[in-house]
Amino acid sequence: MPYFDAASSAPPHPVARQALLAALDEGWGDPARLYREGRRARLLLDAARQTAADAVGCRPDELVFTASGTRAVHQGIAGALAGRRRVGRGLVVSAVEHSSVLHAATAHTVAGGTVTEVGVDRTGRVAPTAYADALRGSAEPVALACLQSANHEVGTEQPVADVAEVCRAAGVPLLVDAAQSLGWGRVEGGWSLLTASAHKWGGPAGVGLLVVRKGVRFAPQGPVDERESGRSAGFENIPAIVAAAASLRAVRAEAESEALRLRGLVDRIRTRVPELVPDVEVVGDPTRRLPHLVTFSCLYVDGESLLHGLDRAEFAVSSGSSCTSSTLTPSHVLRAMGVLSEGNVRVSLPVGTAEADVELFLELLPGIVSAVRAKLGAPTGRESASVRGPRADGAAPSGVADAPGAQSSAAADAAGGGAGGGAEDGDGAVDGDGARSDGGVGAGGGVESGGGAGADAREEAPALTVDALGKRCPLPVIELAKVIEDVPVGAVVAVLADDDAARLDIPAWCDMRGQEYVGERAAQRGAAYWVRRR
Amino acid sequence: MPYFDAASSAPPHPVARQALLAALDEGWGDPARLYREGRRARLLLDAARQTAADAVGCRPDELVFTASGTRAVHQGIAGALAGRRRVGRGLVVSAVEHSSVLHAATAHTVAGGTVTEVGVDRTGRVAPTAYADALRGSAEPVALACLQSANHEVGTEQPVADVAEVCRAAGVPLLVDAAQSLGWGRVEGGWSLLTASAHKWGGPAGVGLLVVRKGVRFAPQGPVDERESGRSAGFENIPAIVAAAASLRAVRAEAESEALRLRGLVDRIRTRVPELVPDVEVVGDPTRRLPHLVTFSCLYVDGESLLHGLDRAEFAVSSGSSCTSSTLTPSHVLRAMGVLSEGNVRVSLPVGTAEADVELFLELLPGIVSAVRAKLGAPTGRESASVRGPRADGAAPSGVADAPGAQSSAAADAAGGGAGGGAEDGDGAVDGDGARSDGGVGAGGGVESGGGAGADAREEAPALTVDALGKRCPLPVIELAKVIEDVPVGAVVAVLADDDAARLDIPAWCDMRGQEYVGERAAQRGAAYWVRRR
Repeated sequence: MPYFDAASSAPPHPVARQALLAALDEGWGDPARLYREGRRARLLLDAARQTAADAVGCRPDELVFTASGTRAVHQGIAGALAGRRRVGRGLVVSAVEHSSVLHAATAHTVAGGTVTEVGVDRTGRVAPTAYADALRGSAEPVALACLQSANHEVGTEQPVADVAEVCRAAGVPLLVDAAQSLGWGRVEGGWSLLTASAHKWGGPAGVGLLVVRKGVRFAPQGPVDERESGRSAGFENIPAIVAAAASLRAVRAEAESEALRLRGLVDRIRTRVPELVPDVEVVGDPTRRLPHLVTFSCLYVDGESLLHGLDRAEFAVSSGSSCTSSTLTPSHVLRAMGVLSEGNVRVSLPVGTAEADVELFLELLPGIVSAVRAKLGAPTGRESASVRGPRADGAAPSGVADAPGAQSSAAADAAGGGAGGGAEDGDGAVDGDGARSDGGVGAGGGVESGGGAGADAREEAPALTVDALGKRCPLPVIELAKVIEDVPVGAVVAVLADDDAARLDIPAWCDMRGQEYVGERAAQRGAAYWVRRR
Repeated sequence: MPYFDAASSAPPHPVARQALLAALDEGWGDPARLYREGRRARLLLDAARQTAADAVGCRPDELVFTASGTRAVHQGIAGALAGRRRVGRGLVVSAVEHSSVLHAATAHTVAGGTVTEVGVDRTGRVAPTAYADALRGSAEPVALACLQSANHEVGTEQPVADVAEVCRAAGVPLLVDAAQSLGWGRVEGGWSLLTASAHKWGGPAGVGLLVVRKGVRFAPQGPVDERESGRSAGFENIPAIVAAAASLRAVRAEAESEALRLRGLVDRIRTRVPELVPDVEVVGDPTRRLPHLVTFSCLYVDGESLLHGLDRAEFAVSSGSSCTSSTLTPSHVLRAMGVLSEGNVRVSLPVGTAEADVELFLELLPGIVSAVRAKLGAPTGRESASVRGPRADGAAPSGVADAPGAQSSAAADAAGGGAGGGAEDGDGAVDGDGARSDGGVGAGGGVESGGGAGADAREEAPALTVDALGKRCPLPVIELAKVIEDVPVGAVVAVLADDDAARLDIPAWCDMRGQEYVGERAAQRGAAYWVRRR
């Protein structure tokens, strides 16, 4: 059964398993004790710390083991903020950090601190200048900045070294969440704190790393004890720590060749999925990315059905779609990038993934997507998908009109059209004025939000209103697609929806379809999303 | 090699090892995911929760897994205090709680809360009435009370059910730290929260339990996520959780018979150590205690040398003596009990301990203690030790004068006397007035402390002052013992000492020796401890 969700949790590396077993017999004693079992445990712990420090590129006394990557982030952020409390209570994070960072930021806000969120471009990447602006523009002096080494949902690598330099110039420590990348290599640049999680690289659960560079002010928060330099309370989990360190060394030894191999497989997915499946948006930076991770979204598909379909075909993947999580909101990462969230699939290949499994995935995916679309009564289109964002080869996506100002537009919709019905294609025409005002492809792409209050009083009333209240993603978008050709070119369709995903997916649909997203208007229930037919 | 320190960390139970191995293959997936690996992990987690809840005697939805017992305590106390913040910020704990509870109490104080410490009697046991007094007498309304099920250093069982009843009557939730006892059985009574640690019962490190009864107000503190009902952030360590639950069930299945067997071995140690080794105080309640744990202190011995001697003889034990920890202060438990801390040894037998190993320990211990004493130039005594506290059989310790008012006095000191020197014994006489004013044997025994400021101006100057400044435990006591017979009966010897243990051990020595501890007096450096020869 192909498991393609290494970014959630990697299968244990064989070395992790062996080391855990050996250390279970040798490392269960209390390393604070003076007798043989204690000394033996201490030796194992010290050796593991040295190994992990070598992998990180730090001194052993700068590294402590925590109970998880999440704990490393929570303890690291709290300790660094407290260490510089006298400087100020500002915290700067990117909008696409892992939830553990954002939860720590929320806790900081609740405690009276200030949080500044740095946005990303359409590939999910931050700009170092945006960090510089945030450091300067914070309402309070900044005590700490945080940036992931690479995004966990779309694989985009962040410019850590450049942001670290910006932070250094401002005298602000930078904490790097390296959870997704540490197995692939060191994090370069002058960061001050670093966190990671062993089960992401094939180590066991229950082990995180927290590195605090010498000279960085750090005041551990909450009750402390004498374990782990007073930075991580509780009895050390030495067997798991030993397994974590050993497996980190093992994955690093094969990282270079395996990265090359997996990058090839991921490139194949990036190229072929949009060829094989209509109406797909591949997201994330095409080149500056993790080697093993690729994410795409499928129009007119709900993430849950898609995941179930893939699971029945024995593929394990994850999704940032709203309907696959308990919160009913789409992934904050996709939202910050301003890309389609419906039918979202993240493929993250574990070390050793067989090429044949990737081929099988490519073979089965189109049928699984079609089946979900058919069940939902989605419009069908003959053309292959429009791919958003810069492509590695620089070529325009196949089947996409290259009209000036149009953004990979024009795969046409079939109006109406029940499941499997072969409706006529539209013509994909782009209306007269063509250009959109909210930026080109790539950097700065974002959802137009709000705007109800400031709406132009002279604007015409919608020609048609679709009531999608109470309907979950992707139904509001499907309803819209079904009626867009029922109104004249230049007329507006309003979609009433109370599903959070609509705010992201209706503009994204417009982008993919070459329709004009006018904006969001206030409504008695939910919101009205205005779309002008081009 | 006999490992007698199960109370620090028990060797992994064979079932824990097997379960960990199996769950490593089956339980590494993210239980929040919808695919097969995720569902499998979720099933394992749910089953482990049910097993642990059965062992605790609670509903599965009342129990969450934490990263350690320490974390369970920290999160439990913080959450319970925050849940009742509007009631008040008072916290009541016993003076002999595990350091994790006391660290949480310190953090609460730092955050502006109020902590009331409930004292213990000479066996280490709290009185339910003392909890009632503390609940009534707290400077602020009490949000939470904490009590261990049994003491981790001396094995004394606490009257949890009675204290829970006192708390219930006052409307205050009681958190029970069951770390030392959960492997032996459920905690009875109407407690509100309970914590435990898997590696104490033979489970793996990295797993704690936090139980919060339905209806108890609880507000998790710090950054949270969706894991473990929002009460324990971070990726679940499912293989270890499965191993923890399986081993808890396994140790419980054999608990009754094994408790009986170990209790016999511990009784043997309690009886024979004072017969075999002179000048020993066995501490802790003789009957209401954990089955596998016994603690004693040896006069004129430093804990570190004793532990090293035992380690060379291949026995692993722990110690509450000051010189065996990095803090240079004796165990807060021994201090709260007011018992001797020097040469302290805690024996805690793991499940399956062989009788032959206990016999070997009893055979080797006397020689190891003698060797340490000889090296330190300690006074020697012919008589066997005086045993403090109630004995199981009710008999007076052998070789101890039964003078009215004397507290197991009278094993005499040899004045002077180098290593191995066969000095003459003293006569063990008790001076005229006999009775001491600070309470009898058993309940209420405590160290007389402070008093420098309020010293009677008329009191005589010391006949002799011993300068033990800069000397570590047990040297100040040894110096005192060497000179006590150099002064006339009724005269005072002052011991100048700056080692923290002297404050505990000089009064304890007086108790054991039938000398009068007059009190502590201020000194330019350290303190002066006054002892009147009887």
